[in-house]
Amino acid sequence: MTTDSWINETLYPDWGQRFLVKRELARVQSAFQDIVIFESTSHGRVMVLDGVIQITEADEFVYQEMLAHVPLLAHGAPESVLIIGAGDGGVLRRVLQHRSVRRAVMVEIDGEVIRLSKQFLPNIAGNAWYDPRAEVIVGDGIDYVQRAPDSAFDAIIVDSTDPIGVGEVLFTDAFYQNCARILGPRGLVVNQCGVPFMQADELRETSARRRRFFPHVVAYVAAVPTYVGGFMTLGLATKDASSLHVPAHEVRARAHAAGILGTTRYWTPEIHVGAFNLPPYIAQHLPE
Amino acid sequence: MTTDSWINETLYPDWGQRFLVKRELARVQSAFQDIVIFESTSHGRVMVLDGVIQITEADEFVYQEMLAHVPLLAHGAPESVLIIGAGDGGVLRRVLQHRSVRRAVMVEIDGEVIRLSKQFLPNIAGNAWYDPRAEVIVGDGIDYVQRAPDSAFDAIIVDSTDPIGVGEVLFTDAFYQNCARILGPRGLVVNQCGVPFMQADELRETSARRRRFFPHVVAYVAAVPTYVGGFMTLGLATKDASSLHVPAHEVRARAHAAGILGTTRYWTPEIHVGAFNLPPYIAQHLPE
Repeated sequence: MTTDSWINETLYPDWGQRFLVKRELARVQSAFQDIVIFESTSHGRVMVLDGVIQITEADEFVYQEMLAHVPLLAHGAPESVLIIGAGDGGVLRRVLQHRSVRRAVMVEIDGEVIRLSKQFLPNIAGNAWYDPRAEVIVGDGIDYVQRAPDSAFDAIIVDSTDPIGVGEVLFTDAFYQNCARILGPRGLVVNQCGVPFMQADELRETSARRRRFFPHVVAYVAAVPTYVGGFMTLGLATKDASSLHVPAHEVRARAHAAGILGTTRYWTPEIHVGAFNLPPYIAQHLPE
Repeated sequence: MTTDSWINETLYPDWGQRFLVKRELARVQSAFQDIVIFESTSHGRVMVLDGVIQITEADEFVYQEMLAHVPLLAHGAPESVLIIGAGDGGVLRRVLQHRSVRRAVMVEIDGEVIRLSKQFLPNIAGNAWYDPRAEVIVGDGIDYVQRAPDSAFDAIIVDSTDPIGVGEVLFTDAFYQNCARILGPRGLVVNQCGVPFMQADELRETSARRRRFFPHVVAYVAAVPTYVGGFMTLGLATKDASSLHVPAHEVRARAHAAGILGTTRYWTPEIHVGAFNLPPYIAQHLPE
């Protein structure tokens, strides 16, 4: 147990954030990665994978709301949703908030992340683990999408680490090709594309890659306090462009029907629509 | 000269960013504050005042564009602009880009910040210092607004430090009252209101304070990479609500006329309009 020491994020070699550690809660070397969970005074509990901040109790709402609500409301009435990664359960919780959702499959490769999240970050997922619509699989996302039947899902949400280490396969041609196959005709896939001010390659390369299998590839932004470096981007690829042009009043109507309106602290219908307007320094990394 | 050491920002006691220092360029104790300028590998040159990151060469465009272009284009055709603080000259440069501007008065209390910026951060201001429309005063902003004639300015841009230390007087009733007096009937004042995820008091208190002297008080957001902690807010107070409801196509027309269109890397007409849509976690701190 470390007391009153600092943890430095090691994502970038020459810049980053640091947290004062109140109490270390877990430090586990799983089969896939180094997992640390600690209590901070500034951000509540924090989970770190291989030295990179993944989630904090204080600001998780920003990322989860934008990662889950935007694609599901862009679709309109998703019934079947696949979540890859997101072992803390926060995306699962947001997905299950949507009344239209009948089935949410979550595939997380590292069972230790789920186990430790249930033990030390119980508020992130809440009761989502026990929802009868949830199917939580400890397994390989790339295997899962390879074996899933055609048109099985309305939306796929990829909440991965950066394309290094365990998350790397989720940024490959094979993965996106299968995503396109297992999505219905109005289906869409969203994945995190990093913080382009620091990691522009991630947005550029994964957008170009997804463009091979989806006719419409865009990105939207969210200002996540502990994904430091300005806007992070979330990449959205779809077979049907209509989901990309939903006006704010229609997004609001859908959110009302879904039971989302009034439950959010970052997402609003106007922010949903506005998040697709990219600053030029980000837009330049997208295809076309 | 420090080599290959880290500089930790000390704005918050238990969380913050750190930079790997390639070379320290200046370390000066002025009459007002501790000034450090260093060369980083991650963000180019960086200026730090009293331990708080003020500006980096790599991301200054985000803050400067949003602080200068939004109020000037919201006004429409500003001729006379007052800048308080902003000793690096970056706001002055952006203000002078606007073709309508005939006079830009900049009042910076700390002459050392100007001197060191000219020497070590020459690209931030470019040729702005030598523009015949620029009047650069080393002096106290609060004194200046007290003595300036009624209705002398179309816009006031306050680029201050946080309301601690030297910047504190720029967050007082007396200051805002004089701002209201020296602004014309369509005038507006903008000031940085901190990062509300970490400093919600700053937005709440200064918004309530400005509300005593201006009928319309709003805020807009910008995701500045090195003002870590999610969105920073810029507070805008005006006597004339029409400047707050300019549609994107009209903002675009004004930016074209002003000579701004195509010169920016963060600001766009759509981002200008969308930045006023606040996430609920921020909106809750504004009056009404």
